Amino acid sequence: MLQEKLNWRYATKKMDPSRKVPEDKLARILEAIQLAPTSSGLQPFEVIVVTNPEVRAQIRAAAWDQAQITDGSHLLVFAAWDNYTEDRIDAVVGDIAAQRGGASENLLNYYNNLKGMYLPRPAEENYQHAARQAYIAFGLGVTAAAFEAVDATPMEGFDPAKVDEILGLRERGLRSVTLLPLGYRAAEGDWLQGQAKVRRDLNKLVREVA
Amino acid sequence: MLQEKLNWRYATKKMDPSRKVPEDKLARILEAIQLAPTSSGLQPFEVIVVTNPEVRAQIRAAAWDQAQITDGSHLLVFAAWDNYTEDRIDAVVGDIAAQRGGASENLLNYYNNLKGMYLPRPAEENYQHAARQAYIAFGLGVTAAAFEAVDATPMEGFDPAKVDEILGLRERGLRSVTLLPLGYRAAEGDWLQGQAKVRRDLNKLVREVA
Repeated sequence: MLQEKLNWRYATKKMDPSRKVPEDKLARILEAIQLAPTSSGLQPFEVIVVTNPEVRAQIRAAAWDQAQITDGSHLLVFAAWDNYTEDRIDAVVGDIAAQRGGASENLLNYYNNLKGMYLPRPAEENYQHAARQAYIAFGLGVTAAAFEAVDATPMEGFDPAKVDEILGLRERGLRSVTLLPLGYRAAEGDWLQGQAKVRRDLNKLVREVA
Repeated sequence: MLQEKLNWRYATKKMDPSRKVPEDKLARILEAIQLAPTSSGLQPFEVIVVTNPEVRAQIRAAAWDQAQITDGSHLLVFAAWDNYTEDRIDAVVGDIAAQRGGASENLLNYYNNLKGMYLPRPAEENYQHAARQAYIAFGLGVTAAAFEAVDATPMEGFDPAKVDEILGLRERGLRSVTLLPLGYRAAEGDWLQGQAKVRRDLNKLVREVA
């Protein structure tokens, strides 16, 4: 079932600009992103949902003019935290305490240890760690789109500094890491449509230590 | 459906050592990992499936003694490429050419451009990029386990240098990035079992630019 959906999807190269992803499908895609597992439950990222045509045109210009960004109906921008901070971690602890009947000693100890490890580290190291978590959610976003029969194009090919500026991300402590246009594949003009999905053989991708 | 599976799963803290994940379930989990989208289709990682008890005991000792590593039946180790190389990229091009009817000029141009960008970069930068791709597959492994009603514990808490040494990864150009024990939750002794799943509110995780 999951494998069938993963086989259905592909990095759509040409989207049909006349079709719009319905709000209920978008909501379920965002819900899967929200449910993605992340290290210590920090969810160290935000997802910017851009529908504004002018803003998407600006982002397209900062992304090798990839047309899916404006031909799709929604553009998701995954933006990782630029650093871990006490406030950000405390907000997570607050959410857990609120939903699990209070701040237990174990809970506080766990996140105090985490702060002891993360807060002294260079911002770049923490950002790299946060970015990895965002990629888990990004993969789930791609997967969730397939479950909704919505096409998507996972993209790294863009100028993050420009996208950060267009969306005002840096001043909010965020750095764009990936783009995910959502829409519907065009009937014609997509060279990748119908091409065989190529993956490394399992006997090369997987090694057993038995 | 996907959301239901994601809600079912949790980072299992105590696994039942008497139960073993069947081979057909393992195969479908690995297939989902294989189908994960990655940048330029490089799949820049390997998955080591460790069942050997002594090797898992060594890895457990390098991973804060987390018991799921030996109480589960299989341990997946996600190991990212330590760098991009001409050989590695050429192997991908070869796979694509073999499955899509030859090496077209567009195909060769695309990957020649990629080599021009990646090969001069520092190994560390390429490794970080490869690691992000491994996280996409890691997330899909966690998701696929849930579809199989198999429990899993996503883990970053281990000493990568030690795990690399135990598995001989560095000499093969690989660096361990995450662990994923697979097995079945124990009926008792798991403090996290039955606790509310805590996630950031969508109105904080998602921002709209309309």
